Amino acid sequence: MSSSSAAPAAKPPMRDALVAAAFRLFLDRGYEQTTVDDIVALAGVGRRSFFRYFPSKEDVVFPDHERCLADMTAFLAASTEEDEPVRRVCDAARLVLRMYAENPTFSVQRYRLTKQVPGLRAYELSVVWRYERALAGYLRGRFADRPGGTLRADVVAAAVVAAHNNALRSWLRSDGEDDAGAAVDHALGYVQAAFGHEAPDHAGGPDRPRGEGAEEAEDVVVLVARRDAPLWRVVREFETVLGRG
Amino acid sequence: MSSSSAAPAAKPPMRDALVAAAFRLFLDRGYEQTTVDDIVALAGVGRRSFFRYFPSKEDVVFPDHERCLADMTAFLAASTEEDEPVRRVCDAARLVLRMYAENPTFSVQRYRLTKQVPGLRAYELSVVWRYERALAGYLRGRFADRPGGTLRADVVAAAVVAAHNNALRSWLRSDGEDDAGAAVDHALGYVQAAFGHEAPDHAGGPDRPRGEGAEEAEDVVVLVARRDAPLWRVVREFETVLGRG
Repeated sequence: MSSSSAAPAAKPPMRDALVAAAFRLFLDRGYEQTTVDDIVALAGVGRRSFFRYFPSKEDVVFPDHERCLADMTAFLAASTEEDEPVRRVCDAARLVLRMYAENPTFSVQRYRLTKQVPGLRAYELSVVWRYERALAGYLRGRFADRPGGTLRADVVAAAVVAAHNNALRSWLRSDGEDDAGAAVDHALGYVQAAFGHEAPDHAGGPDRPRGEGAEEAEDVVVLVARRDAPLWRVVREFETVLGRG
Repeated sequence: MSSSSAAPAAKPPMRDALVAAAFRLFLDRGYEQTTVDDIVALAGVGRRSFFRYFPSKEDVVFPDHERCLADMTAFLAASTEEDEPVRRVCDAARLVLRMYAENPTFSVQRYRLTKQVPGLRAYELSVVWRYERALAGYLRGRFADRPGGTLRADVVAAAVVAAHNNALRSWLRSDGEDDAGAAVDHALGYVQAAFGHEAPDHAGGPDRPRGEGAEEAEDVVVLVARRDAPLWRVVREFETVLGRG
């Protein structure tokens, strides 16, 4: 965007120039007050160039989500049967965090912008929904042979996205100062603890774990006991659950 | 909308008439091809009447969500300390299901319409997000005095919404033939099993349940055992977990 005669290599690619110009204008005069014409004028390119990269003004606010969604899809597609499914979707969610953390200043600016503009909030919800469906789609495949597999897949995917976003938002509210990786590890750890080793099945039926500790699918029971419960009571409860008592 | 001289009591209120006219047109000629002018012409009212009830054409597709959100907010506000929080948000989610189940034909028609029109899908996502934030807001209050309370609140709210929507969509795909209540009970039961008695805290510390069975907050242990495990092994594992062995 500078008029200096710098070598082509030093000039940012046109796509980046459009994003930079757009954000300069969004921050200066507001999102709604900025037109695509304003953006292309500042970037020194034509309207057609803008629409080659971005279907709409909203898309320039989130320039990296399509690439990140493609990365996530490829990452999940590259999974093997050995990958513990819940851990795998947690790792997939980390790809999104990395995209934000790669450029803290930009991410924080966008966070503020998105909070102010309802249309961008709606756009963001649709992006989040696509991430969630990508995770759920993978989990549905992995849980396909279980009763309630789609339910489990949808719930785990939603929990992973919520945990990720909780950590992401804390980090954004810290103006990108906190440790994003540690926050998301903590948040995803909570989901893995709840689901990674199989939440108890309320239907009472046995559940089939594929956790790391289980080489073969096998029936398990989950027993919740008071820490101070007398041993005889735990034994009796275990027998009752099994119908052995 | 009929030209018969029925008594006023038999005539649906204007708001209902607008919804009925809108859906007749949406189904006949498509959502995008229907204008607000078409709707008011068929309903026999003026444009201003339409906008008195609905801010936009999209809103007429979801005429009951505002009321349902208000009902949910009131329901959560009426909670007491005695209400187990996860059970409470599950019951709040049942209010949404009830709204759909009250009018199966309309709900199924709308489901098909929403799948076809991206703008309506985006609208629906924003509605779902508002339900989720209502649930999360309540849970954040209930979990305020715990470490990681907002994380737990956000994850549980997302899990409840995902479970509800999984059941709702199954029911809608059955053309409203299945038992909606049973499906959502099953789905929410799964979430309650995972979180209602407190998912194990991955930080390793014991967690404090507030389930119905526990009059006082007390430490619990969660034991996962193979269904065919010999009793002595379960006892030994329990002792190991407690550090009693």
